Amino acid sequence: MSLPPTVVAVGEATGAAGEFAAIARIARRFGAPPDGEVWIGDDAAVVRVGRGVLAIAADAVVAGVHADLRLTSVADLGWKALAVNVSDLAAMGLVAERAVVTVSGPPETDLDALYEGLAAASRAFACPVVGGDLTESPTLVVSVTVVGDAGVSPPPVRRNGAAEADAIWASGPLGAGAAALRSLRAGMRGSAHARPEPRTGEGVAARELGATAMIDVSDGFAADLGHVLDASGVGCELDCLPVAPGATRDEALGGGEDFELVWCMPATTDPRGAFAARGLRLPVRLGRCTADPACRTLQGQPLAPVGWQHRVG
Amino acid sequence: MSLPPTVVAVGEATGAAGEFAAIARIARRFGAPPDGEVWIGDDAAVVRVGRGVLAIAADAVVAGVHADLRLTSVADLGWKALAVNVSDLAAMGLVAERAVVTVSGPPETDLDALYEGLAAASRAFACPVVGGDLTESPTLVVSVTVVGDAGVSPPPVRRNGAAEADAIWASGPLGAGAAALRSLRAGMRGSAHARPEPRTGEGVAARELGATAMIDVSDGFAADLGHVLDASGVGCELDCLPVAPGATRDEALGGGEDFELVWCMPATTDPRGAFAARGLRLPVRLGRCTADPACRTLQGQPLAPVGWQHRVG
Repeated sequence: MSLPPTVVAVGEATGAAGEFAAIARIARRFGAPPDGEVWIGDDAAVVRVGRGVLAIAADAVVAGVHADLRLTSVADLGWKALAVNVSDLAAMGLVAERAVVTVSGPPETDLDALYEGLAAASRAFACPVVGGDLTESPTLVVSVTVVGDAGVSPPPVRRNGAAEADAIWASGPLGAGAAALRSLRAGMRGSAHARPEPRTGEGVAARELGATAMIDVSDGFAADLGHVLDASGVGCELDCLPVAPGATRDEALGGGEDFELVWCMPATTDPRGAFAARGLRLPVRLGRCTADPACRTLQGQPLAPVGWQHRVG
Repeated sequence: MSLPPTVVAVGEATGAAGEFAAIARIARRFGAPPDGEVWIGDDAAVVRVGRGVLAIAADAVVAGVHADLRLTSVADLGWKALAVNVSDLAAMGLVAERAVVTVSGPPETDLDALYEGLAAASRAFACPVVGGDLTESPTLVVSVTVVGDAGVSPPPVRRNGAAEADAIWASGPLGAGAAALRSLRAGMRGSAHARPEPRTGEGVAARELGATAMIDVSDGFAADLGHVLDASGVGCELDCLPVAPGATRDEALGGGEDFELVWCMPATTDPRGAFAARGLRLPVRLGRCTADPACRTLQGQPLAPVGWQHRVG
């Protein structure tokens, strides 16, 4: 087994073919979790430690792979490294409360700038960095782990709970991340993509309103919705694809690093009033889950399972 | 601020000059912890999340920096990445219960071997890997975070509690890590250093028997004892330096990656009976703490604050 040629989150294993097969093999090494715990195979793990029930997520950001430092500042890289992890907990309806960070990089790494970005994100998300380490390495790798309280009611939202006839919702229009990256490459500096905001409030609200399955759009909408449908054993009929301003339809379908959340909940629940009351952006209803897992359509056409392959950006 | 040219654990900041100044500046960005929490500045952080009190430690192992893959197998690198983190919790008298791992590496990385080493260590230490991610990177970096229950009584042992007249103990003779590395470089393959065993049982016993301060020997005995003395505001008079079989006196004083624990406890406590009753190796009494922080002697001679600088090994 060798490292897959593209970015794969262990937490996003579905047992499907290709890159995810490596993850499934890793998961098997560590066995099945005890009752009440979630291990490899969701946005975050849920574990019992002492008197607490804890959510824990870890993701590394690599210079030259997740961010081209000719286009992105090292401070923005620090922000992003924390943001992607906070988003993983948001995707289970949870709040990241503390982070640890390991930084491995060349001696010339601008640590002041990196930690400025990390500290700004930690203030914005109320998630202080409480420990970690610094190591010399030829490549800059920023690995962040976040923890949050998973002993909540209703419990954390996994990927596998969607049922036939559930409505499918998104926290906002899709494709903004890919569109911003395209602008950046064309020489137009923008800040939207540089310091993305995880949808923590939206995730918590969706959980409290009865979401049955949820994910954040990191690999691309069609691919990530596919993870939820695969895990839940259902299909989908989508009526609507909300496209973010400046984005193309393809970017909305396949662009990664969107940070929007996609969830399912019983069709009898309209979450918009509760979202508005909390001062959150109004979610968008995309369609419904079908009993047939093979049915995956958008406006009557097959939903292409296009996935975002992380490239230098 | 740039990355220090040697390995520095954020958790090991003491505010002293040199490399640790970078860590102190990082710590200031995140402010002071609330009551009952320990942030940057000890072997592990202690945080309150939900109903639990949690210890959390993170360390990265970098191929070519912490391990020369011409001398060390990638499986042993995986073992070591988990072991150094389990040792950080042991140094507070705590047990690592769950781990998450981010692996960043070149496409040709032998993930099967790496995860074989991680899985073997996770079985040996009863600390399963529950999540993480895989990322492409030109350099192999394995970053591990462990969590454990810190809601224990007596509470976690920090570095700053040693008092005048406390006795100083070590969990075993020193210098074995450096001696094994020397043998490896001379072409003699050994296994002692390749798959080191954290002293978790010893750490827990020391905490339960009233240890006032504790650390694991990662930078070198003299440097690490120095961290405890600095944090506690005391000095030391050592009578005894136990040297591991095959090691030199200099390796015992300055060799890193020893995994032995060094702790202080009231002189009225002799822990050896309790250690023997638990089937643990007998600890060695090294000397005592003095009121004068400037007094640091070994057999009447000044204790040189030699520190181990992590090199390719």
